[in-house]
Amino acid sequence: MGRADGEQHKRKLLAGVDLGGTNFVCGLVDQDGTVLRTAKRPTEAERGSDHVLQSVADTIELLLADEGADNVVLTAVGVGLPGFLDPERGIVRMAGNLKWKDVPISDILSKRLAAPVFIDNDVRSFTYGEAAAGAAAGYRHVLGIMLGTGLASGMVNDGRIYYGSGYMAGEFGHILMDGVPFACGCGMTGCLETVASATGLVRQVRAQLEAGRSSVLAEWAGGDPSAIQAADVSKAYDLGDPVAREVMDFTGRTLGKALAYAVTLYGPDAIVIGGGASLAGERLFAPMREELQRTVHPLYWERLTIVPAQRLDEAGVVGSAMIAQHRLEQQTA
Amino acid sequence: MGRADGEQHKRKLLAGVDLGGTNFVCGLVDQDGTVLRTAKRPTEAERGSDHVLQSVADTIELLLADEGADNVVLTAVGVGLPGFLDPERGIVRMAGNLKWKDVPISDILSKRLAAPVFIDNDVRSFTYGEAAAGAAAGYRHVLGIMLGTGLASGMVNDGRIYYGSGYMAGEFGHILMDGVPFACGCGMTGCLETVASATGLVRQVRAQLEAGRSSVLAEWAGGDPSAIQAADVSKAYDLGDPVAREVMDFTGRTLGKALAYAVTLYGPDAIVIGGGASLAGERLFAPMREELQRTVHPLYWERLTIVPAQRLDEAGVVGSAMIAQHRLEQQTA
Repeated sequence: MGRADGEQHKRKLLAGVDLGGTNFVCGLVDQDGTVLRTAKRPTEAERGSDHVLQSVADTIELLLADEGADNVVLTAVGVGLPGFLDPERGIVRMAGNLKWKDVPISDILSKRLAAPVFIDNDVRSFTYGEAAAGAAAGYRHVLGIMLGTGLASGMVNDGRIYYGSGYMAGEFGHILMDGVPFACGCGMTGCLETVASATGLVRQVRAQLEAGRSSVLAEWAGGDPSAIQAADVSKAYDLGDPVAREVMDFTGRTLGKALAYAVTLYGPDAIVIGGGASLAGERLFAPMREELQRTVHPLYWERLTIVPAQRLDEAGVVGSAMIAQHRLEQQTA
Repeated sequence: MGRADGEQHKRKLLAGVDLGGTNFVCGLVDQDGTVLRTAKRPTEAERGSDHVLQSVADTIELLLADEGADNVVLTAVGVGLPGFLDPERGIVRMAGNLKWKDVPISDILSKRLAAPVFIDNDVRSFTYGEAAAGAAAGYRHVLGIMLGTGLASGMVNDGRIYYGSGYMAGEFGHILMDGVPFACGCGMTGCLETVASATGLVRQVRAQLEAGRSSVLAEWAGGDPSAIQAADVSKAYDLGDPVAREVMDFTGRTLGKALAYAVTLYGPDAIVIGGGASLAGERLFAPMREELQRTVHPLYWERLTIVPAQRLDEAGVVGSAMIAQHRLEQQTA
């Protein structure tokens, strides 16, 4: 049996990378979207892009060695990260939390790993992963909502990721909402993500405490409101704390109202909601659903399913790997 | 020279049909989107779908005869009409103003005309026409806004029409807007189209007159507010009438605010605005642009062009014909 035959009998695997500002996660994924093994490392963004990408490549090679390098072949690598990207050319235009500008990730990593490398932003990777092999599997038109530090959306329509001009469609967190008074880091005031996000929940609680409202959250913070975390708001909610209840209710309703715009314009048949702040669960989802149903036409509501993300930790890894497989197929078609 | 050779030397033409509740327009269109000749007829919807489709087929055959039937070959027919449609199967699910339900237009017309027939809704046909060979030619991501009796939108993204679940994406007129008090025919209250449309302009003027405001529009109406037309509001605006000014300003601002949602979610590089109410022109567009610029992130605004429709009367005919050509190419690809 010749070497070429041997290659053919090796297991074909994908690598998916979820590249965050603090940590990155690499995973080996098979062609059905099953995660075989993962590794998490500190990003160390301050050491520059060469260092980070070397670290990513090393991690993937270690995972391949653990899987038995002689028996597997790496067919493609997908990298998901926040920021403004050019997915066609594989270049990060600007990634604020990594402090990267014009980094040709695909070129650098593909030379190092001898496999094609595709990039996309983290929310589109998450949405694609949940649509291809997660909570929204089986739906054709999937809107992904990532309630993390910020808020963004991705849309997978008939198996295709929706990009828009400059790959910029879907900055759902920067829709302005009436009744939202907070200045946003983007320069505008009243952006949805200033309330509907992990930082948004905390921001609202702090504003209430500063206005003199009493809350168990003030006690827990012990005089340091900057110590309050989004998870604390859920705990206070469960104790019936009125500030936590009001903040969660307002956040859910505001998100529901904005989702009505997105549902009307995109026409999804499923919405999948992930990100750390989505762990608030029904505390947030109940008022969100109520407001969405009230403000969207019944013809949309009737055909809509809303599901929590299935792969909260792995969605970025799976999604990046699935996007890489999809784009590889497009290239070779 | 055999007959087949003769066919090959005939000019290939498309037919486009803009099928409205009152009139329909048929046109012969060449493959570059140039309209060769058109004919307009009363729809006579009350006589039923068989009669209307027979009348459409007769009109197209007459146009072909006028063009010199021996020298041309009809490659495909496109029909654009308002309502809920199944474009893949060529069936009208429900068309309110035609009072049609489950009419297989493509089957019926293609037998009569011996050419493939494709259908789509009127706003998507308009948008596709303006993107392919109209005011937005050369732009890759085009949002079409039709300000007619009602308000709807279409999105052409990288040359593909965006449909969403059930082909229902884009009921832009049924986004709920704060500060809009009017009940909508759809069953909701506060829909954008209750102000941003021809009927919406008139509705607002009537509400002001009923509230006792004085206006030159009350004089013109001569005691019959139902006589007021959208075009009258423009005339009164030009005379400095305060009611007309306020109504136009509020309508433009409300539309601009809603466009900010659509721009953020779709990421278009061009917006093309058509329909009868768009004849208000800068009276409406100036406040609309101002509010859109104020409420959308600069990164979207910078890459955005807003243009009035180029083919106000023919956009439906051209768009339907271009969609038919596009779908024919997809079928034979």
